[in-house]
Amino acid sequence: MSKFENVRSHSISLIAGLSDADSTAQSMDDASPAKWHLAHTSWFFETFLLRDNVSEYRLFDDDYAFLFNSYYEAEGARHARPERGLLTRPSLQEILDYRAHVDAAMVEAMDGFSSQLLGLVELGLHHEQQHQELLLTDILDLFSRNPIGPSLLEPKPRPAIIDTPLGWIEGASGVQSIGHEGNGFAFDCEGPRHEVMLHPHMIANRPVTNGEWQAFIADGGYRDPRHWLSDGWSWVQEQNIHAPLHWRERDGVTEEFTLQGWREIILCAPVRHISLFEADAYASWADARLPTEAEWEVAAENGLPDIGSVWEWTGSAYRPYPGFQAAEGAVGEYNGKFMSGQFVLKGGSVATPSGHMRHSYRNFFYPHQRWQFTGLRLAKDI
Amino acid sequence: MSKFENVRSHSISLIAGLSDADSTAQSMDDASPAKWHLAHTSWFFETFLLRDNVSEYRLFDDDYAFLFNSYYEAEGARHARPERGLLTRPSLQEILDYRAHVDAAMVEAMDGFSSQLLGLVELGLHHEQQHQELLLTDILDLFSRNPIGPSLLEPKPRPAIIDTPLGWIEGASGVQSIGHEGNGFAFDCEGPRHEVMLHPHMIANRPVTNGEWQAFIADGGYRDPRHWLSDGWSWVQEQNIHAPLHWRERDGVTEEFTLQGWREIILCAPVRHISLFEADAYASWADARLPTEAEWEVAAENGLPDIGSVWEWTGSAYRPYPGFQAAEGAVGEYNGKFMSGQFVLKGGSVATPSGHMRHSYRNFFYPHQRWQFTGLRLAKDI
Amino acid sequence: MSKFENVRSHSISLIAGLSDADSTAQSMDDASPAKWHLAHTSWFFETFLLRDNVSEYRLFDDDYAFLFNSYYEAEGARHARPERGLLTRPSLQEILDYRAHVDAAMVEAMDGFSSQLLGLVELGLHHEQQHQELLLTDILDLFSRNPIGPSLLEPKPRPAIIDTPLGWIEGASGVQSIGHEGNGFAFDCEGPRHEVMLHPHMIANRPVTNGEWQAFIADGGYRDPRHWLSDGWSWVQEQNIHAPLHWRERDGVTEEFTLQGWREIILCAPVRHISLFEADAYASWADARLPTEAEWEVAAENGLPDIGSVWEWTGSAYRPYPGFQAAEGAVGEYNGKFMSGQFVLKGGSVATPSGHMRHSYRNFFYPHQRWQFTGLRLAKDI
Amino acid sequence: MSKFENVRSHSISLIAGLSDADSTAQSMDDASPAKWHLAHTSWFFETFLLRDNVSEYRLFDDDYAFLFNSYYEAEGARHARPERGLLTRPSLQEILDYRAHVDAAMVEAMDGFSSQLLGLVELGLHHEQQHQELLLTDILDLFSRNPIGPSLLEPKPRPAIIDTPLGWIEGASGVQSIGHEGNGFAFDCEGPRHEVMLHPHMIANRPVTNGEWQAFIADGGYRDPRHWLSDGWSWVQEQNIHAPLHWRERDGVTEEFTLQGWREIILCAPVRHISLFEADAYASWADARLPTEAEWEVAAENGLPDIGSVWEWTGSAYRPYPGFQAAEGAVGEYNGKFMSGQFVLKGGSVATPSGHMRHSYRNFFYPHQRWQFTGLRLAKDI
Repeated sequence: MSKFENVRSHSISLIAGLSDADSTAQSMDDASPAKWHLAHTSWFFETFLLRDNVSEYRLFDDDYAFLFNSYYEAEGARHARPERGLLTRPSLQEILDYRAHVDAAMVEAMDGFSSQLLGLVELGLHHEQQHQELLLTDILDLFSRNPIGPSLLEPKPRPAIIDTPLGWIEGASGVQSIGHEGNGFAFDCEGPRHEVMLHPHMIANRPVTNGEWQAFIADGGYRDPRHWLSDGWSWVQEQNIHAPLHWRERDGVTEEFTLQGWREIILCAPVRHISLFEADAYASWADARLPTEAEWEVAAENGLPDIGSVWEWTGSAYRPYPGFQAAEGAVGEYNGKFMSGQFVLKGGSVATPSGHMRHSYRNFFYPHQRWQFTGLRLAKDI
Repeated sequence: MSKFENVRSHSISLIAGLSDADSTAQSMDDASPAKWHLAHTSWFFETFLLRDNVSEYRLFDDDYAFLFNSYYEAEGARHARPERGLLTRPSLQEILDYRAHVDAAMVEAMDGFSSQLLGLVELGLHHEQQHQELLLTDILDLFSRNPIGPSLLEPKPRPAIIDTPLGWIEGASGVQSIGHEGNGFAFDCEGPRHEVMLHPHMIANRPVTNGEWQAFIADGGYRDPRHWLSDGWSWVQEQNIHAPLHWRERDGVTEEFTLQGWREIILCAPVRHISLFEADAYASWADARLPTEAEWEVAAENGLPDIGSVWEWTGSAYRPYPGFQAAEGAVGEYNGKFMSGQFVLKGGSVATPSGHMRHSYRNFFYPHQRWQFTGLRLAKDI
Repeated sequence: MSKFENVRSHSISLIAGLSDADSTAQSMDDASPAKWHLAHTSWFFETFLLRDNVSEYRLFDDDYAFLFNSYYEAEGARHARPERGLLTRPSLQEILDYRAHVDAAMVEAMDGFSSQLLGLVELGLHHEQQHQELLLTDILDLFSRNPIGPSLLEPKPRPAIIDTPLGWIEGASGVQSIGHEGNGFAFDCEGPRHEVMLHPHMIANRPVTNGEWQAFIADGGYRDPRHWLSDGWSWVQEQNIHAPLHWRERDGVTEEFTLQGWREIILCAPVRHISLFEADAYASWADARLPTEAEWEVAAENGLPDIGSVWEWTGSAYRPYPGFQAAEGAVGEYNGKFMSGQFVLKGGSVATPSGHMRHSYRNFFYPHQRWQFTGLRLAKDI
Repeated sequence: MSKFENVRSHSISLIAGLSDADSTAQSMDDASPAKWHLAHTSWFFETFLLRDNVSEYRLFDDDYAFLFNSYYEAEGARHARPERGLLTRPSLQEILDYRAHVDAAMVEAMDGFSSQLLGLVELGLHHEQQHQELLLTDILDLFSRNPIGPSLLEPKPRPAIIDTPLGWIEGASGVQSIGHEGNGFAFDCEGPRHEVMLHPHMIANRPVTNGEWQAFIADGGYRDPRHWLSDGWSWVQEQNIHAPLHWRERDGVTEEFTLQGWREIILCAPVRHISLFEADAYASWADARLPTEAEWEVAAENGLPDIGSVWEWTGSAYRPYPGFQAAEGAVGEYNGKFMSGQFVLKGGSVATPSGHMRHSYRNFFYPHQRWQFTGLRLAKDI
């Protein structure tokens, strides 16, 4: 099976446990319905590959361009994001038919595509892999708001996690290089590769754990303004935050809501569903700081352990690299326009599709957001 | 078939065209999902009849009391209203099973019910009939927000409407009586029957029509503050209101969104989906006023024509009648606690279940609300 | 001194203790700066009397029409209400000069006014008396929000208040008349006098007291949803209301903020600064109800005791009387357009200018508002 | 006169044209009253120097700590920021007395201060200089919202501005150093001095001018989403932004609101009162970008011309330098806690007190803010 078919069919596999209604609901403005993710990723191929380059291609439905454009201003008007959950029609089945229609046309057309178009196909597949992760986190958020706590996946025994003591690794310093280079795929914002100046520092050998986070809570971490960024302190007060998202106390046990429903937390597992504000406050409490993006990336290239179970907040704002050029045309809206107010996360999570992680990857969210599988790793000046 | 079975099965018939997703979505805070209406009306019977009076009755699901209580404070905590659309589980099928479970228990138990309990059953059925109308208006609102404009019902030829010229009927004046009396069912707020003083006035022979409303628009009615209540003028400006809800212009034709989808308006049909603010402004523009509730009810008892296609806004605030007593217990929360800020509407609409209209009925909504089938009829002092 | 000079100079006397800054600040959208009240009441005379009827009159300042129009849409654009507190210029002294300029022109011109214009002058004076009360309540609200609690008036010994036991007076029933009639001044909304039907009832011999209100609080009145209107319960929860406005506990003593600063409450004095929601909940808790406007007015005409220390919430929505006609022209916007969502209050308060109370007076506020001197008196069906 | 007396008396000189009311009003949450600035800067000396270190010092007023703390969490509860404009008392005169009281105590005590305390005094003076600039921009904002457009300063002829053609200067690249070093004063966030890696680039010889901005407007710059950051585009749409703050068209002439009132813009003068969003959009439209903070600072050390008339937005997020340590104690809250969501501005403006500009200075604001004298200078990769 081609990579195209692999990625496309993986999206379908993710929704095996979802009903038509599950796939339609939108839990908050930040999230999108599962059905919408399935349709939007198909709209990408239909629009940028088939419509624009395959003369005999017939649109599956003229309304879909309006319904399933996400944020590409150059592609014209689009359906208001907060109302995605009201699109009970088209149904999940119709979206599956839409996907089949697009896939059949793509499979037929791809043989004749130029290398430039094949580059766009690859972009579309990586775009779809991003949405695969969002689909899972958005379903998790939706189910977490249902008092009966549905689960997407069958509960199964969890793998044993090794309880690694916190240790410190000295990072490379001086002139170093980061950013994507070479023939592999990367998004435009990951390059160009360029030199950065790193200052002496250490980085932790693993992410912060649930058990450590409990100590932070027990020590009054959420109630002491000295640890918090000013915006973070406002957020904690206004939203009445006192634990990671999806935690609850039940009969003296701390539970977390997962894709398998409510489960007891594992003390030595990485804490997740925390905001940048919480990550930064924890680091301050622990007399440490967050690593910069460059420190993290260089460390990862040098073999940083325990990457990939949670996205790790860095202390770096999401801003363009020196020499950054957005891609031409509508797909150029993909990354550059989001470069204000957000922080970079590195690594990947349990929800990241296999093959989609790379050290140069720049994930980004606003500092208050935490419905993704987000955690942190400490760093220190030396 | 008993009245119980009639009413209960009629609810099911309303959702014949709805998918699981259609029945789950909530278009705005004022509306509820169709599935929720089906469940909540069953919760009423399960709670107030079965749970409280049938010792061998087993709750269908312990969580449902929390999920499907609407506003009965005496019945404890309940799910937040604006999040009803996130309840993708239980599914529509499970709710249908819930209904069957409750219905079977009710049918078995009703034979042994006291007349007091049978009174509660009747209350429950009238309560369900209210929700039947809401279910339709809420689906209409949901579908109206979908750019592809789905329809609940098959389009069919519309009955010819007679174009009746506006005429005036002199109303009864002096001491008159309104309010429910006698053995038939009525909600607590419809009584007691009591004397009122009516002053000389005339009332129109039919509701205001779409064609008349177009004249109001053409004359700048939505842009002239002199016609508007102060709160209404703020609402018009802030919400950028310039026509009834669900109207659009398409190629020079005025269309309205209906349960059969988008259709051209019929000029001589009653205008609908207007707020009290709009109704009041229209009346002012037409050198008339809204009838009071008492004027309307006395006129209806005396044979007022053309009642029942739209709920007619009156100029009366929804407040208790002299001697009003709320029913005892949780069901006593049914009406009295809503008696601030709302206006009374009389009559009934195309969505009102047959047998559910009566002259003493007091429908009530806030002056800005218009997703119901709401219209107006003029009155005048003489 | 003429009535004109009397009323106008009384306004000035009210601000004796205010600084330029005190007179400029606006504590909330509902309130206006003292300086604005002084200017707006002058704008009324300048606009409707001098500008429109005295050919040689010269406007004091061309900008003032824009700055000091309140809500007369017919008079054109006006300054946004919530920004009144930003008008640090013109200064208080300039507004006093403006008043002197207008007063001089008025005194000179009034001799030649027709009786119709003299009627407008009288309207302007009653309008100014309304603003005299608002000026005091708005200053009270402003000072209450200042942590150092300034006082407008010198503290002086409070008159002894007789502790009257609660008693009940049987009200007149059957056909009665209310509304203004005769030659004295009244606002348009107070008439026409008309017959109403009253049902058997009793009305209390005095308003509810602070001591009784403490019993309501002690009995959990603010925490029991059964007593509350639905909108009132939402308001109590969202605003975290648990006592009348301007109450605080200090060393076991209940204090209220007054124009003399913080003072201990007097148990037998009428409770004040309560909303309609609180008044209605108290009445429900006390197994009583609020009187209707008609019950209150008929009782007042029959000698109801203890009127005039607090505005008394009635259970009647503020809606037009039968045969109501708004005055012609811009001054016709005075009352009619506020007839949605508000409740009528009757009587008068300690802040009402002497000579400004009459039984037909219809004061009106929204059910959540309580920065006026608002209280309640109980009634009961019999 | 000592530096202490110089700086303190300069604050007083700024308010020469202000009334008690002018000094009390607060135009928006971001701004503070002039009186508050005068009091808060005195509170700094009273609290951190006198109260904590001078045993015989007597607080001027016990309430002032609560009223005039700005954001020092360690110093306890404080008055809510958006209500600063309600503090009509204490009066401006009382605040001037407060200043005199603090100044007298400081002048007497400073002779005996240790060098560590003298360092705190210097911090307090730089803090006061920051507030001197804010005082002016806040008054400008207040007066701009008054329809009669008051002016703080007498209009005087404006100095001729040389119309410099846009030119490009090649910046230094490779390993460079930025950040404060040496004996002079700097805030904690300006250091430590450290090496950075700069990439080849050019920087403009002067800020963007009003005339150039008009060309951006004329070319539809505010209506073309391609130029805008995503958050910026939302801001432009929601706030209906179409020109710099304080611009208006009057009879075909573009005017700007200044401390001398409304004046025609000067085409060759730097554009000001623009947000980071606007600056970034302009740069994109001009096929350029904003300089990074490091590029700007290195260029400034190398003699960049035309610095100091407007604060220049950089493309750098306000984040800590490598090795940054916040100062100990309450004053350590000064800078570090604001390091999320804000961008750095460099240089200084017409409102910056003389002697307060330095190349390492890091001013910071949120990307939508523009009530300061903010402009931009272009840069380009080469």
